[in-house]
Amino acid sequence: MSILDADRLREFFQPKSVALVGATDKSGWSTSTYNNLLQHGFAGDVHLVNPKTPVVHGVETRRSLTDIPGPVDLAYVMTPIEVVPRVLEEGAARGIRNYVILTAGYGEVGGDGTVREQEVADIARRHDLTVLGPNGNGFINAADSITPYGLPIPPPLLGGSVGVVLQSGALASNVLAFAQARNIGISLLVSMGNETVMSVTDVMNALVDSPETKVIALFLESIRHPEEFAEIARRALAAGKPIVALKIGRSVKASRTAQAHTGALVGDDKTVDAAFRQLGVIRVSSLEDLMVTAGMLAETGPLPGNRIGVVTPSGGASEIISDRAEDEGLELPEFAGHTTEALRAVLPPFATPNNPLDVTGYVLLDRQLMAKSLDVVAADPGVDVIMLLQDMPRATPDFDLAVENYRHTGAVIRASAKPVVIVGNVLVDVNETGRALREAADYPQIAGGIEHGMTALGHAVRWSETYRRQQAGGEEPLAVEVSVPEGLPPRTGTWTERHAAGFLAANGIPVVPSLVAASPEEAGRLAEEVGFPVVLKAAADGVEHKSDLGGVELGLGDAESVRAAAARIATSLASAGHDGSTTVVQPMRAGGTELLVGVVRDPSWGLTLAVAMGGVWVEILGDSQLRLLPVSTTEARQAIESLRSAAVLRGARGQDPVDLDALADVVARIGAIAVALGDDLESLEVNPLLVSGDRIEALDALITWRR
Amino acid sequence: MSILDADRLREFFQPKSVALVGATDKSGWSTSTYNNLLQHGFAGDVHLVNPKTPVVHGVETRRSLTDIPGPVDLAYVMTPIEVVPRVLEEGAARGIRNYVILTAGYGEVGGDGTVREQEVADIARRHDLTVLGPNGNGFINAADSITPYGLPIPPPLLGGSVGVVLQSGALASNVLAFAQARNIGISLLVSMGNETVMSVTDVMNALVDSPETKVIALFLESIRHPEEFAEIARRALAAGKPIVALKIGRSVKASRTAQAHTGALVGDDKTVDAAFRQLGVIRVSSLEDLMVTAGMLAETGPLPGNRIGVVTPSGGASEIISDRAEDEGLELPEFAGHTTEALRAVLPPFATPNNPLDVTGYVLLDRQLMAKSLDVVAADPGVDVIMLLQDMPRATPDFDLAVENYRHTGAVIRASAKPVVIVGNVLVDVNETGRALREAADYPQIAGGIEHGMTALGHAVRWSETYRRQQAGGEEPLAVEVSVPEGLPPRTGTWTERHAAGFLAANGIPVVPSLVAASPEEAGRLAEEVGFPVVLKAAADGVEHKSDLGGVELGLGDAESVRAAAARIATSLASAGHDGSTTVVQPMRAGGTELLVGVVRDPSWGLTLAVAMGGVWVEILGDSQLRLLPVSTTEARQAIESLRSAAVLRGARGQDPVDLDALADVVARIGAIAVALGDDLESLEVNPLLVSGDRIEALDALITWRR
Repeated sequence: MSILDADRLREFFQPKSVALVGATDKSGWSTSTYNNLLQHGFAGDVHLVNPKTPVVHGVETRRSLTDIPGPVDLAYVMTPIEVVPRVLEEGAARGIRNYVILTAGYGEVGGDGTVREQEVADIARRHDLTVLGPNGNGFINAADSITPYGLPIPPPLLGGSVGVVLQSGALASNVLAFAQARNIGISLLVSMGNETVMSVTDVMNALVDSPETKVIALFLESIRHPEEFAEIARRALAAGKPIVALKIGRSVKASRTAQAHTGALVGDDKTVDAAFRQLGVIRVSSLEDLMVTAGMLAETGPLPGNRIGVVTPSGGASEIISDRAEDEGLELPEFAGHTTEALRAVLPPFATPNNPLDVTGYVLLDRQLMAKSLDVVAADPGVDVIMLLQDMPRATPDFDLAVENYRHTGAVIRASAKPVVIVGNVLVDVNETGRALREAADYPQIAGGIEHGMTALGHAVRWSETYRRQQAGGEEPLAVEVSVPEGLPPRTGTWTERHAAGFLAANGIPVVPSLVAASPEEAGRLAEEVGFPVVLKAAADGVEHKSDLGGVELGLGDAESVRAAAARIATSLASAGHDGSTTVVQPMRAGGTELLVGVVRDPSWGLTLAVAMGGVWVEILGDSQLRLLPVSTTEARQAIESLRSAAVLRGARGQDPVDLDALADVVARIGAIAVALGDDLESLEVNPLLVSGDRIEALDALITWRR
Repeated sequence: MSILDADRLREFFQPKSVALVGATDKSGWSTSTYNNLLQHGFAGDVHLVNPKTPVVHGVETRRSLTDIPGPVDLAYVMTPIEVVPRVLEEGAARGIRNYVILTAGYGEVGGDGTVREQEVADIARRHDLTVLGPNGNGFINAADSITPYGLPIPPPLLGGSVGVVLQSGALASNVLAFAQARNIGISLLVSMGNETVMSVTDVMNALVDSPETKVIALFLESIRHPEEFAEIARRALAAGKPIVALKIGRSVKASRTAQAHTGALVGDDKTVDAAFRQLGVIRVSSLEDLMVTAGMLAETGPLPGNRIGVVTPSGGASEIISDRAEDEGLELPEFAGHTTEALRAVLPPFATPNNPLDVTGYVLLDRQLMAKSLDVVAADPGVDVIMLLQDMPRATPDFDLAVENYRHTGAVIRASAKPVVIVGNVLVDVNETGRALREAADYPQIAGGIEHGMTALGHAVRWSETYRRQQAGGEEPLAVEVSVPEGLPPRTGTWTERHAAGFLAANGIPVVPSLVAASPEEAGRLAEEVGFPVVLKAAADGVEHKSDLGGVELGLGDAESVRAAAARIATSLASAGHDGSTTVVQPMRAGGTELLVGVVRDPSWGLTLAVAMGGVWVEILGDSQLRLLPVSTTEARQAIESLRSAAVLRGARGQDPVDLDALADVVARIGAIAVALGDDLESLEVNPLLVSGDRIEALDALITWRR
């Protein structure tokens, strides 16, 4: 871990004096940065540095950082690239520790740029400088009105409690525009640039400690430090601060472990999904969802459950909400009898007191109808959260009356014993009328539109469940110590069936009985021990696709057949250049469901457990679940139960129901064994793991070592 | 079909004089309607009718419709409900043919309201009146500035070419707000109310003929007249006018044919999906997608293909676009060599000429960089459509310069040989600056945000494919005449296996050979004919769950086993009260893939074909496709190939590849037979249809008649 000190970072984002180095009237970036500082209320000193032009932006310049009298807390560098090292050296000599470097042409262009970026890193390390960028636009500390940021920030800039970190300069402006449009207040927005010194995880770390920030919103192109990311995400969850992330690159499909079938089930993006789910990081797929979800959670905090009481003024909207609630796994419970009665007393006679509730267009005559209904619904014992469908008006004939109405509703919302989430109908800006009204009435945040609002509510409810689980202490991951039976080969290359299965059996994984026969005669004898029918397999080491070489014979019904098969196997393998004289005798299993349980080493996230339905059908349908290791037995069970075809395991369609507790134990144990094998392990795969009722048996296994 | 005359409807929506009946200062609806007409430029006469108040909205009133001198083209009725019939009668007597009834309390409240609604219907029919509503807010004819509409319409009201029809009053305002926010021009917006006289299909029909309307956007709670809807949708497709629909009620799951397994595969909503797909109706799931998609298609018309060349100023946005393009099935082809070269000449040296193209932040220095790049990309032979990522600015330091830049880019777009779709980064309003700039520069429509823009582009491309297919003449659905072999029972109740399969075999469906045996001895003899192993089934009529009753024996390997099995079946069925003396002998099939091909009668849409993977796994995963009948062989093949596990049929994972042409023939023929059976048929099911290589065989069948 090389996370920058959080106190240093807090200091970085709260400069009291800023020097703009390379300020010039010819640059839009310079103009924007200067205007932003002035326009958005920076209370400190702004110094302009330009060695050639005495007046820039109408202000007298200094020739260099050295010439500035008094302290400089932050230098914002936009000089030509050749000059940057000298600026840093000069600044360091003068005691300036914090730098934003806007200048581009570094690692992002490759070649010489990469060398120049290394030079910046070296100078920073040598002088203990904190650098944001290069090739980044800077930051917006909206909480403290400090805006050294190189692109225009159209007013108003609304301070609030969402911290935003972006690995894209251009999108920062869009995120900002959206936040402004929807009245979502920002604590700090950081445009990362090349992350030469300061990285996304550094800023996340500081935001977890920042009292102004309640939610962290991320735009990520790549996760450079997965271990740091995971640690900070766990800390954020413990602190009750949701992380919402738009991580792009979903379309990139990577298969990295050709040998194990598991390889086809994983891939960068699926692993990111798994990691985020386990870490409680909310993954969204659009900038709108990023900010609407962050804005909602900043307003509500953790929600107590998924049973939503919905209050709307529209039947059409209610039905859209019903559809979307089902998508999001949100329950819209029927109201209790007394709630229905109480609603009847409030609603006009032609309204129907169902959930979702349509109070009807009568709301135009009775402006407090929504608030009164909300009050009743909030008292329903079957409801965890109230969702109010309401927009800020875009125009109002009587502003003062509107303020009065909204203030009243706002008071009802604040007095509610249960959290109230307000969602608008459709995603449009809160315009100036709406913004003024909201301010005057001190009205809560409204999530933009049913579509994104329901997505956000779904995320918020699911995140809250993870948070509650974590708060309840969670469950320790399963850990085991492994014992290695004698006679196993060294930990290199591949352990095929005999060794891998033997090792797993010695460590508590139920494995189909396997007896090794040195001759056809012994195979026949052992088959009688095992019981017919049996399967006979070549036992030779290092033969991975035995069946393709004629090394597997199924359904052998008597000793004579077994002997004949052993002879055939010996011949077949010999002709392929392998020794087929030794065979493995196993009882032949019929029926049941085949699972694949595998562990692969993800280059970013480390050991990852995959559980999948086996067999031809489900492999084609891609029914698999990933989890980062280690996992608890409960997590293993959740992975199993999250399979789309999990119903088969539960006994659907006449199948024998599987003992899911026992299965979860086996799956968690396979993961724990992989973890215990440590850095030597590349992959471990049990395929198939045959399950049928309470019988769980590994029929084949493969272990690949890193060396 | 009882579609209202389109000329009458055109007249209805273009009144030159309007009477507001029941106008009063006390009603928000009255005030809004009056203000809307004045504020949005209605050029005709507005008369206010109120028998008790001489002045309303500052204007002298008339006591009744009769008192108004001169012609009245439309009466907008908002009187108390008791008065409405008299108003209609008076108006009819005076020659007024067109009415909007805003008054509520009709069918939507049930009871007495239903009676009152029938009374309105009766008066309308008696006097040949056209009525919109009751319980509807009226309409907005933005093309002609005629706005008899009962809720506030905040300015500006932008005329354009999207016709909007809504089965929800409250949502109309939201749709309108969104259209205004995104600069999407409306031709006509109609809030339907109870559809007592005028229905959604009537308005759709008029919009298909309306030269102002290029796209029809629908919000539907229910489709009241599916046959009319289908006919008008076909007409709209032929006219090149896309229909975009938000149809709610996705969460309602209905199973209607308990007897046939097919019943579990269909349900209102899946049938709506199938109908929309076949009719070329674009189904969306949010109000935002409804309007963004409609707005995009109104601007671009049909698009020539799915290969998109993307031009953006941002790497982050490019990657979001890549992810979303994959979701939408859009191709982002690599640029041709000469395109890459030409781009190098245009772009700054540090930019990479890939698709999607990031022209980089250098666009801030070279304002025409996007336009120049667009020009180059449009010339790439591998690209069908250009997507330009660009927003209207929310603020600009130099409006005139901005106009000049946008005008230039607009000219490049218009001169492009290929369609250009412009999509913004994030869904925010086009604010006043943007709107003014767009008007001054005559700039094309910008779709709101990457998220909704990519959804819209996907819909637009898919709709265009359907349109091109339709324009190319399409393919006639398969039609057959059925012959009914002698000896079949009358068309009532259920035809179980023997009769259903015999009937299908006689009509060209390959059915597994079935020989009927009247005794155990005959069964044994016939089994030798058929070839072992065989399946023996009770032949008794009306026994639907034979296997549960011990009426099916599988895998019989010799004549002796067959005779014994026949005796057992006779005993088992006798004990269940059936005659089991007659059996059916069939060869036992092994291997292959089981499909279910069924036809059910949907109460709204009529006969519907379902194709599904059989077997336990895929039934649990719900892998099925629906199509309204009749279908062509090509459509049947598309249904088969749209199954998620279609790869299995194509020979994935070592399966024998299926002859898909032959399979499509059989599936289409099953559909055609169902159609030929006409109104008598309730359902027809082949389950399983066993396919293996070029062998296709129905193993069992069931026909249910309506009587």
